[in-house]
Amino acid sequence: MISESDILKCFQHLVDSSYHKESILIGSGDDAAVIDTQERKLIHSIDISKLGVHFHRDNRPEDIAIRSISTALSDLAGMGSYPAFITIGLTSNIEEISWYERFSDGIKEVLDEFKIDLVGGDVTKGELNICVSVFGYPFHKPILRSGAKVGDSVFISGKLGEARQGLQDWLNKKQSNYLEKYLQPKPKFKKAKQISAFATSCIDISDGLIKDLGDICKQSCVGAELNFENIPIHNDYNDLNYGDDYELCFTTPSKHNNYFIDLGFYLIGEIKKEKSLIIKDQGNIIEFNKDGWDPFT
Amino acid sequence: MISESDILKCFQHLVDSSYHKESILIGSGDDAAVIDTQERKLIHSIDISKLGVHFHRDNRPEDIAIRSISTALSDLAGMGSYPAFITIGLTSNIEEISWYERFSDGIKEVLDEFKIDLVGGDVTKGELNICVSVFGYPFHKPILRSGAKVGDSVFISGKLGEARQGLQDWLNKKQSNYLEKYLQPKPKFKKAKQISAFATSCIDISDGLIKDLGDICKQSCVGAELNFENIPIHNDYNDLNYGDDYELCFTTPSKHNNYFIDLGFYLIGEIKKEKSLIIKDQGNIIEFNKDGWDPFT
Repeated sequence: MISESDILKCFQHLVDSSYHKESILIGSGDDAAVIDTQERKLIHSIDISKLGVHFHRDNRPEDIAIRSISTALSDLAGMGSYPAFITIGLTSNIEEISWYERFSDGIKEVLDEFKIDLVGGDVTKGELNICVSVFGYPFHKPILRSGAKVGDSVFISGKLGEARQGLQDWLNKKQSNYLEKYLQPKPKFKKAKQISAFATSCIDISDGLIKDLGDICKQSCVGAELNFENIPIHNDYNDLNYGDDYELCFTTPSKHNNYFIDLGFYLIGEIKKEKSLIIKDQGNIIEFNKDGWDPFT
Repeated sequence: MISESDILKCFQHLVDSSYHKESILIGSGDDAAVIDTQERKLIHSIDISKLGVHFHRDNRPEDIAIRSISTALSDLAGMGSYPAFITIGLTSNIEEISWYERFSDGIKEVLDEFKIDLVGGDVTKGELNICVSVFGYPFHKPILRSGAKVGDSVFISGKLGEARQGLQDWLNKKQSNYLEKYLQPKPKFKKAKQISAFATSCIDISDGLIKDLGDICKQSCVGAELNFENIPIHNDYNDLNYGDDYELCFTTPSKHNNYFIDLGFYLIGEIKKEKSLIIKDQGNIIEFNKDGWDPFT
């Protein structure tokens, strides 16, 4: 039977990197890590990825690692922040050492892509479960969900529904360009940096535009009106209820509209005083949510 | 079927406390928490507690919460640090809402006992698994595993084996004073504070004295010689290989011996140049580890 120490050996090389030497005084290997934030505000979130919920048994171990960490990191992008380091709590009952080696290759890929450090972790036996703690710092200042103002423009950072298409193609064992969008989602740090100085509120779309913009509205005590024809989608209305693209939804004073449009962001609507979420298609209000979900309840 | 939002409602009241208002700028409810460490070094560790490994199906939900968080917090004590805030990743497929209410009562008990804040979390469906991220600050400075010096005295902070007895009694459904030692272990923050200015190395005994002191020796490139008759144990030699008491093992220059003895700590041995871990009983070297475990391999 594979031991905890066998598994830990597969991860040992990951803790040697140190992109943030100046702030990670002690990394992995002691009781805990020691961090000097150097007077920056630290942004932290925790996120679980679970077999059968967030990935499937026959996903590649590399993809499971990449997807688990990337979706956790996306919360930092949603705060207008960049990533600096992570810790991973891995529960697994897989017996093949090669699985852990490949899983660790996936971790390494994300660490190197975003120049982040792995500063600790824990390993235990059980049904596959990956709990990732992520840490970062604001590009400019933390962008909260609660800052949207009446009259602000509502933007999203990219097309919705491609990852949903990727999942569909993956389930149908169909080769397509969308597979990677689902298997290896990218947290939108470059875009987060571009909006960091001018956004009044921001969220990463992980539960679907409707629910996530609903959360901005709720926390900002405002409503929103969207124009369906301006929302870049891959398929249909249902793309508004899927979050796997991890694009950003943010609000900004309308004087910045041209700046953001020129950068390739999509202006999809406006923040309103009335606390409701309305979507219009060619002037007519459309029923966007057949389950009758209301962000204000 | 119980929903994620039903579960989250059970935890909502927990995020209202704010023992650390000055440093937790944004707590739970946004994409991530925002922390101002106020120029202190931040100590962080992640720890998984898993059904069947760290607790049993019929443990009380309160005890599962208390035990999961307390064992995670113990790593901070092992760094000579005090706790400030935590985040929890809870995976559960339990369908009774009362279980979550009682689990949350357990969380609340720990938060209030140690004056710490819950600043975020995640909930997902699956086999019961509790991943706790803990955060704190050093009482004095972080005490590492790597600072033990030849000639230093080796101390432990309390008796070993009582929690092991508690587990035994619990398994045998026997009422005893030891049950609580197993079910609700206490991280040793008061003791960590007492040693913080004078310890050269420290670890919380979570894997057993032999393995954990072995880790100090390994990381400090030294060895140790212990006197068995000076080690306070509940049962027998095997108490040296169990960690459930979460006592601290630390080293300190021998000039502080009387100070620590007066405080009730146990002087159990000395750090040696030769890289081996020797235990003597009335002058004779004893075989403490029948599996031939060697901290230096």
